Amino acid sequence: MLIFCKEIGRNYVMIYLDNSATSKPNDEVLQSYEQVSKQFYANPSSIHQLGAQVEQLQTKAREQAAHLLNINPKEVIFTSGGTESNNLAIKGIALKHQQRGKHIITTSIEHASVYETCKRLEQLGFMVTYLPVDESGVINVGELEKAITNETILISVMHVNNEIGSIQPIEKIGEIAKQYPKLYFHVDAVQSIGKLPLKLSGSGIDLCTISGHKINGLNGTGMLFVKEGTSLFPLFQGGGQEDQLRSGTENVAGNVAFVKALRLIMEKENNMGSHFTSLGSILRKRMNEMKNVVINSPENGADHILNISVPRLKPETVIHSLYEKGIIISTQSACASKVSEKSRVLEACQLSYERSISGLRISMSYETTKEDIEQFCSIFKQTIEELFQIME
Amino acid sequence: MLIFCKEIGRNYVMIYLDNSATSKPNDEVLQSYEQVSKQFYANPSSIHQLGAQVEQLQTKAREQAAHLLNINPKEVIFTSGGTESNNLAIKGIALKHQQRGKHIITTSIEHASVYETCKRLEQLGFMVTYLPVDESGVINVGELEKAITNETILISVMHVNNEIGSIQPIEKIGEIAKQYPKLYFHVDAVQSIGKLPLKLSGSGIDLCTISGHKINGLNGTGMLFVKEGTSLFPLFQGGGQEDQLRSGTENVAGNVAFVKALRLIMEKENNMGSHFTSLGSILRKRMNEMKNVVINSPENGADHILNISVPRLKPETVIHSLYEKGIIISTQSACASKVSEKSRVLEACQLSYERSISGLRISMSYETTKEDIEQFCSIFKQTIEELFQIME
Repeated sequence: MLIFCKEIGRNYVMIYLDNSATSKPNDEVLQSYEQVSKQFYANPSSIHQLGAQVEQLQTKAREQAAHLLNINPKEVIFTSGGTESNNLAIKGIALKHQQRGKHIITTSIEHASVYETCKRLEQLGFMVTYLPVDESGVINVGELEKAITNETILISVMHVNNEIGSIQPIEKIGEIAKQYPKLYFHVDAVQSIGKLPLKLSGSGIDLCTISGHKINGLNGTGMLFVKEGTSLFPLFQGGGQEDQLRSGTENVAGNVAFVKALRLIMEKENNMGSHFTSLGSILRKRMNEMKNVVINSPENGADHILNISVPRLKPETVIHSLYEKGIIISTQSACASKVSEKSRVLEACQLSYERSISGLRISMSYETTKEDIEQFCSIFKQTIEELFQIME
Repeated sequence: MLIFCKEIGRNYVMIYLDNSATSKPNDEVLQSYEQVSKQFYANPSSIHQLGAQVEQLQTKAREQAAHLLNINPKEVIFTSGGTESNNLAIKGIALKHQQRGKHIITTSIEHASVYETCKRLEQLGFMVTYLPVDESGVINVGELEKAITNETILISVMHVNNEIGSIQPIEKIGEIAKQYPKLYFHVDAVQSIGKLPLKLSGSGIDLCTISGHKINGLNGTGMLFVKEGTSLFPLFQGGGQEDQLRSGTENVAGNVAFVKALRLIMEKENNMGSHFTSLGSILRKRMNEMKNVVINSPENGADHILNISVPRLKPETVIHSLYEKGIIISTQSACASKVSEKSRVLEACQLSYERSISGLRISMSYETTKEDIEQFCSIFKQTIEELFQIME
């Protein structure tokens, strides 16, 4: 992958393995964005024909998203991304249905946009149960069911964890949620969509978050699946766009680009089914063979994310050394990387303090090749050997 | 201006006079967006150098915005646009400072994203005073001061009205606000920025909304000026971006593009100072001369917006007939045009029912030429004559 480097003032080859933080926008997606911005810039709420054309375009994009996800077009609410979708789902249910009860169930390893939202709701008088996870980063469905009370209005559980790739039993949780018609079930699918199958319709899921920039789409784009009949307190009041749930002039170019990214990644999911399994197993095998490296990701997790630790080496040092050799990986979640040194997720998986402060995340895309992984492993091995030598 | 028409399958010349609904993105702005999306797509929160480069880019954009607005870089909070900024300002103050008091003062002619937000807060127990306006669409500052109580925590007044262009006495209100340190003053400057001067620093203004797509920038971009020391309840919790006020992976390409649009329009404001005055006076003169046309906009309003009525003609009919002749104008606010037939703003200006249901808005940009206006006036005259003939 070509990356522009300011220091050397030109593009050079870079192996980008930080796709779970953000992914490179697909050229076709950017082209769609540009085309719509140039030609269909009118306000879709304007009653003139140019506005109507733009509205039609957005309707088509909504229908295509619905078709791809096998849901109803009315159930597609375009947003500015994952954080907005997660906040709209959780605060939207909490503020709208608080008279029914003020209890929320979530997990201890959610993304900050779920976790911090729940923390904030506690300040507003809500009770939140943060389910623990086992060593492989998975909750116990029996414990979840036990946690449900008459006061429970929302269960929010992510599909694939953003730091270690553990997969939650969404189908089983959906079956449980169906038995409690008073509560809503929200799934943060930001890290899974287009990589792992997820059934929305008839699954017990009422709300599902998808982000554009994690699927080679654009920043500032995304959607929330809102099952028909689910009422929310909107975060934005105004012109009543997006079925009154998300006011504001529609970002039609962004929404069209988002749906294109969704289509492209779902096509890849269909056509390149074994891509991550195959790359993931090479990566895991090589890491297993390396001295000083421990794997934090569970065996049965998603193949596109691998979390490892090199205890005694500062993750920042490893990351900066790798960067000089043209490789980009990251520590924990980008949204938490500057806030705290210890990973809340690794700690919740009962990993030692040493491992929870030294996590490194390697996250792939469909553009990652076998050669990228082989080259990464070889440079990584060499890099940590050099760093240990310096330390000795 | 070239417009793509789906029906005829090609570009053709169009006079676009719906700039207050949305404006055509500047090519340079789109180019910046594309360049950043392609080259600087990493997550600015990632700790590797590519993330750091992207963060630097955003820091520069923030500094440039601050420089243009003569404020502190810390006071620039990037958002997804005007509706988000207005909601963040109003709900942010209301939810954060409600223990101080639950009274808000606004006007009866605010944009839906302010007006509906205040309406919703009433449901949560807040008291809202909607100040009336006189026939020229301006509030009485004395009445505003009288409305302030010990419970008042927020005054939210728009600078330029989006439907009729009336200008509120922001400077005077700022001076009053300064005398009440317990309350915050929010200005929706979506329709004025880059067209009318607005002093933020030292003005008594604590919060100010700016939207990208109204200044030839991109949809889904914008900012909220948040004066240092002003604390808000964030609408989005998560990774703590934007000084904890607006979590979510930064839309750096969008933010850079927004600041470019801001710079370009402020340069035009400096260099083309008499543009709107000159075009506006031609337009007003021609409209004054026309039989059957009444002007709804005040004489002393902003020159880039002119609201007129042709009583007895349905505005939709006029708009559709004009469109066939290559001219785009609109009814009232795009964000309200599909909701209600009667304009809340025209009604608040004490206009007759007939006028309040027949408002047409002509809104210009710096790209609008004298020829555009002359041609528009001549086609408009001909069109309404034809329509009256058909009616007779």
